[in-house]
Amino acid sequence: MKVLVIGSTGTIGTPVTHALEDKYEVIKASHSRAQLKVDISDPASIEQLFKKVGKVDAVVSVAGHATFRPLVSLSDEDYSLSLKSKLMGQVNLVRHGINFVNDRGSFTLSGGILSRAPMPGGAAVSMVNAALEGFVRAAAIELPRHIRINLVAPGWVRETLLALNMDPSSGTPADIVAQTYVYAVESGFSGQVLDVVAAAR
Amino acid sequence: MKVLVIGSTGTIGTPVTHALEDKYEVIKASHSRAQLKVDISDPASIEQLFKKVGKVDAVVSVAGHATFRPLVSLSDEDYSLSLKSKLMGQVNLVRHGINFVNDRGSFTLSGGILSRAPMPGGAAVSMVNAALEGFVRAAAIELPRHIRINLVAPGWVRETLLALNMDPSSGTPADIVAQTYVYAVESGFSGQVLDVVAAAR
Repeated sequence: MKVLVIGSTGTIGTPVTHALEDKYEVIKASHSRAQLKVDISDPASIEQLFKKVGKVDAVVSVAGHATFRPLVSLSDEDYSLSLKSKLMGQVNLVRHGINFVNDRGSFTLSGGILSRAPMPGGAAVSMVNAALEGFVRAAAIELPRHIRINLVAPGWVRETLLALNMDPSSGTPADIVAQTYVYAVESGFSGQVLDVVAAAR
Repeated sequence: MKVLVIGSTGTIGTPVTHALEDKYEVIKASHSRAQLKVDISDPASIEQLFKKVGKVDAVVSVAGHATFRPLVSLSDEDYSLSLKSKLMGQVNLVRHGINFVNDRGSFTLSGGILSRAPMPGGAAVSMVNAALEGFVRAAAIELPRHIRINLVAPGWVRETLLALNMDPSSGTPADIVAQTYVYAVESGFSGQVLDVVAAAR
């Protein structure tokens, strides 16, 4: 199986890439650090990527940005960037990627549990993550050639909390999160939202 | 209580307005047919509306458009319009309306059950409706002065199905849908998504 990972050098993308490389041919793309460059907020950049890569069996996206900021401070730009990057960036990976995914292939996108477990500062992130859930559920019933689509919705990642100097105890280690992406790629289901929250300690 | 209804002349907006007028002072605004005009896809138009109307106790939005079209036919424009109108139009009603809503007032926005009960042709609509659910859940925990926010998520409306020459039997009459908006305005809850689907027959 040939898997294209977009965002392969990020906190979650790195262990996702490693886990997939154990078993499959992995093509790595990211905004700046991978060999293949792609800016998912630019549809032309997505098109170029797929033309370069050609046919694949799975597309895994661990890319896209949404702005975490108090409700009253979120600017037009914050909303616009969040919609353009994490939401439409990933939606456009599907729209432009359909013809490059083999029969019975799959898309696995990244959301997050703020969609349903909100916290202060998360209005734009919750909005975008929830939008991705709605899109994935709906796109699943229309994708051609038995192509599947699922969303992984991580909670806080341990490595992210550590990088932010926050208590890491409520975070899930990135390599555990990564296993959920592998599970989505290897599964037979479609239209599902897979939550990844820290196991009870 | 003073209630601003945006989209007061629509299929759902009309009975919502009538039901609220039985008990409250209702200020009616819509894109073209009400006395007060507003284009919610234009933030400047929203600002002008609130400046004209002044302080209110409740804002009820039954406005905004999202495009229903097969996944493979949805264009960049379809997504862009859907995000700009039904999603950000209503989000911007909240952002620009906060300072015009009295303490313990409320926002009631409109989503739809395609967010969680998808159907072919609904990818953009499901995405936008789900985004509104995520936004409302998150905004609820940050709105100041005990201002509440809820979302009404109607299923198919009987009058809409009739207008489309479709079988109306699975639709909920618009005046029943309207009661859910009144309930949200009069309730004490916040951050809730209220589904309105046809009662079992």
